[in-house]
Amino acid sequence: MRRIKMIIEYDGSRYHGFQRQINAHTVQEEIENSIYKLNHEKITLIAASRTDAGVHALGQVIAFDTEASIPPERWKLALNSVLPSDIRALNSEEVSAVFNPRFQAVKKKYAYNIYRKESEAMFYRDYALLNEQELDIDEMKKACELLAGKQNFQAFCARGSSAKTFEREIYRCELINDFPFLRMEIEGNGFLYNMVRIIMGTMLEIGKGKRRADSIPEIIVSRDRAMSGFTAPPQGLYLISVSYPSFTG
Amino acid sequence: MRRIKMIIEYDGSRYHGFQRQINAHTVQEEIENSIYKLNHEKITLIAASRTDAGVHALGQVIAFDTEASIPPERWKLALNSVLPSDIRALNSEEVSAVFNPRFQAVKKKYAYNIYRKESEAMFYRDYALLNEQELDIDEMKKACELLAGKQNFQAFCARGSSAKTFEREIYRCELINDFPFLRMEIEGNGFLYNMVRIIMGTMLEIGKGKRRADSIPEIIVSRDRAMSGFTAPPQGLYLISVSYPSFTG
Repeated sequence: MRRIKMIIEYDGSRYHGFQRQINAHTVQEEIENSIYKLNHEKITLIAASRTDAGVHALGQVIAFDTEASIPPERWKLALNSVLPSDIRALNSEEVSAVFNPRFQAVKKKYAYNIYRKESEAMFYRDYALLNEQELDIDEMKKACELLAGKQNFQAFCARGSSAKTFEREIYRCELINDFPFLRMEIEGNGFLYNMVRIIMGTMLEIGKGKRRADSIPEIIVSRDRAMSGFTAPPQGLYLISVSYPSFTG
Repeated sequence: MRRIKMIIEYDGSRYHGFQRQINAHTVQEEIENSIYKLNHEKITLIAASRTDAGVHALGQVIAFDTEASIPPERWKLALNSVLPSDIRALNSEEVSAVFNPRFQAVKKKYAYNIYRKESEAMFYRDYALLNEQELDIDEMKKACELLAGKQNFQAFCARGSSAKTFEREIYRCELINDFPFLRMEIEGNGFLYNMVRIIMGTMLEIGKGKRRADSIPEIIVSRDRAMSGFTAPPQGLYLISVSYPSFTG
């Protein structure tokens, strides 16, 4: 028995999110079915992050146990030979039998992509939020800085979340203005349900002048979801990477 | 009666090309049906270029005659309100009753897009040719230069073309290396059937060392399709723009 860790990227457009569900087409189901096609093992994989319907990943991390004789580094090629073209394995390796991609993650990085031009916008309709309105980028950058640090982010967590604690640490939140793209990159030790999308929605309201950057500390202190902005749509969100302590794996 | 000229962009992925066909979903059909939805006129439009299935356009030019009272510059918004999200009008204006977007075109510009990295390639599967192999860019650039000028391009024309003459003038053929993208931009007074895709296929064979740049003059002189390279797939090709003499429109 071996535990295999893989880095996976996927285009989330066609999927009802990562996690396996009854009667819905998910990324997890496709990967597990592909492993079954390879060697008739019915495995249940563990993933670092349960991305929502329409959300993309460039560096999702999964792990599973296998009895197959496939050498660990060959898993990447083997799985790519059976996966659909919108899910790709980028890396595979053997890890310790206690490696858990979800609970041992120490840092996650997400990006949110906005496309700001009329022409060619259609090519990004599944890959970005489309916004042609003028945005106050400087004000949005100020707001980004106010989000960093160890804080209680309950106001940026979707209602009905099963989270036990709402304190998270944001290591970096940066807005990169690369016209026609505007990209928010955010790194932290963990994110609450819909947290990045609610942060982006709030940022957009700040960019449009509906709020000011200095409302961020008030929103945080309120711990009230009603105080923050709208939930930005999923298609702009990308899980970029997940980091682990060097002793794991 | 007014003649309206419009600039249209579309994502060709879902369509069997531009031109209306029986039993196939085309861009022309969608636009004509959208005009019918607007004002119950059954028009037949004329387009600058009949792009193939899977080919995209950032600047297709169409023209049609209408009795509708919609002011010419309002056509853009009106049509966008009924068009599917993968076809967009970028501009609309009234032109002279003799304007013909196909026969009066004096310059067309195409681009062909190659994506050269393993990661994120899936996002470009409908929008670029995917190639991770090493390419000799300098040799490809030399070949581009040898294509410019007024020449007989029969060797770069798909068999079965109904073209009467094979002489065309290429004003510019340039390779832009912007990793992970490699883009060929080509401008000319007109292009034969599949000409840009056959040029790109030949370029790729040169980049991979299967041919040399100095084989281009021999291919041209041969006038033989068997001498040039493969037809690069449609999804990398974009119709960028079409130009008209200033007195038209």
